[in-house]
Amino acid sequence: MPIKLHSYWRSSASYRVRMALNLKGLDYTIEPVHLVRDGGQQHSEAYRALNPQGLVPTLEIDGQVISQSMAMLEYLEEQHPTPALLPADAPGRARVRAIANAIACDIHPLNNLRVLKYLVGELGVDEDAKLAWYRHWTELGLGQVEAMLDDPATGRFCHGDEPGLADCCLLPQVYNAQRFKCKLDAMPRILAICEALEQIPAIRRAAPENQPDAE
Amino acid sequence: MPIKLHSYWRSSASYRVRMALNLKGLDYTIEPVHLVRDGGQQHSEAYRALNPQGLVPTLEIDGQVISQSMAMLEYLEEQHPTPALLPADAPGRARVRAIANAIACDIHPLNNLRVLKYLVGELGVDEDAKLAWYRHWTELGLGQVEAMLDDPATGRFCHGDEPGLADCCLLPQVYNAQRFKCKLDAMPRILAICEALEQIPAIRRAAPENQPDAE
Repeated sequence: MPIKLHSYWRSSASYRVRMALNLKGLDYTIEPVHLVRDGGQQHSEAYRALNPQGLVPTLEIDGQVISQSMAMLEYLEEQHPTPALLPADAPGRARVRAIANAIACDIHPLNNLRVLKYLVGELGVDEDAKLAWYRHWTELGLGQVEAMLDDPATGRFCHGDEPGLADCCLLPQVYNAQRFKCKLDAMPRILAICEALEQIPAIRRAAPENQPDAE
Repeated sequence: MPIKLHSYWRSSASYRVRMALNLKGLDYTIEPVHLVRDGGQQHSEAYRALNPQGLVPTLEIDGQVISQSMAMLEYLEEQHPTPALLPADAPGRARVRAIANAIACDIHPLNNLRVLKYLVGELGVDEDAKLAWYRHWTELGLGQVEAMLDDPATGRFCHGDEPGLADCCLLPQVYNAQRFKCKLDAMPRILAICEALEQIPAIRRAAPENQPDAE
């Protein structure tokens, strides 16, 4: 059974998993799920049968269906350990997971499409206040990540000189931050890491604009 | 060096880690961090030197300082594997991590104290709309978790008949949901699991009301 990733080109959680699959050299097909068209294809009955949360991505692999991008990254690391996305030492793994979760838990969920829609729809927030919300949580959160990267363990990438699980979370978040014109100039470590990541062909292939469903 | 957990009694991320430490029978001391007093003690310079994000909890263990509750749970599982909080099989681990992250990424971050403060302060949202926001994300998210639990792998607890990592996320979230009077009657699986969890003395000891800083 080939690996299948249900993905939306601009979804940063999907982008994380595409990066990991590509870094590990795994073949997979993309099954596009359009988050806006048809009122959001992720809400369809067929998709929710696969993913009861109705969120992208979903990974079909080894006869199972996995939801939640962080669970997918851990699964890929366990089943396809080379190249490793987590360090060999436990303190290093804790550090990488902490950086990854500072993004996956403390930045991304606040700036999801569904949250921005609620702000505008239910709370009647105007466009400027919506953008200010987006930028507030992203700039605050990435500023905290920048502080976490002020550590001798940081190398060319978030942890040492090979791309890993934290980088799989960082680059998609920065991609989104730039789309929303967040101020990142005070974050030289993050910017240098993202520049280094974008030089890796496997990572470039995971970028939103290189997806079959890119618009 | 004894294990030290920087914790706030009502913080659900702290509660997760207290559950895991207690289930694994580890001795530790609680270092209270008051999230409201003194403008929020988590913002102090001394605390931020430990935790650059200025968030609770922080775990000091084996000579290191770990931030992010999910990174702590994984670290504890790696270093103190018995009793296990993750299943022995890879598909089971993916399922447990997916349920845990459905809570840690998709419910909790939206209902943090700092987010509720922003809604009221910066967006001028009134008390009713703030509560509606809280209940919306919590009821939606827990409803999705209930759907994920509609699976033969669910047992007395989220996965099988022993408490695990997903349970460490579920009970604190339900505790918070009940504080905010969310409607949970349509979630029989979640309610039954929480009732079973609360019968375990190690878990009861982790509850907010049993903390040294409880008010």
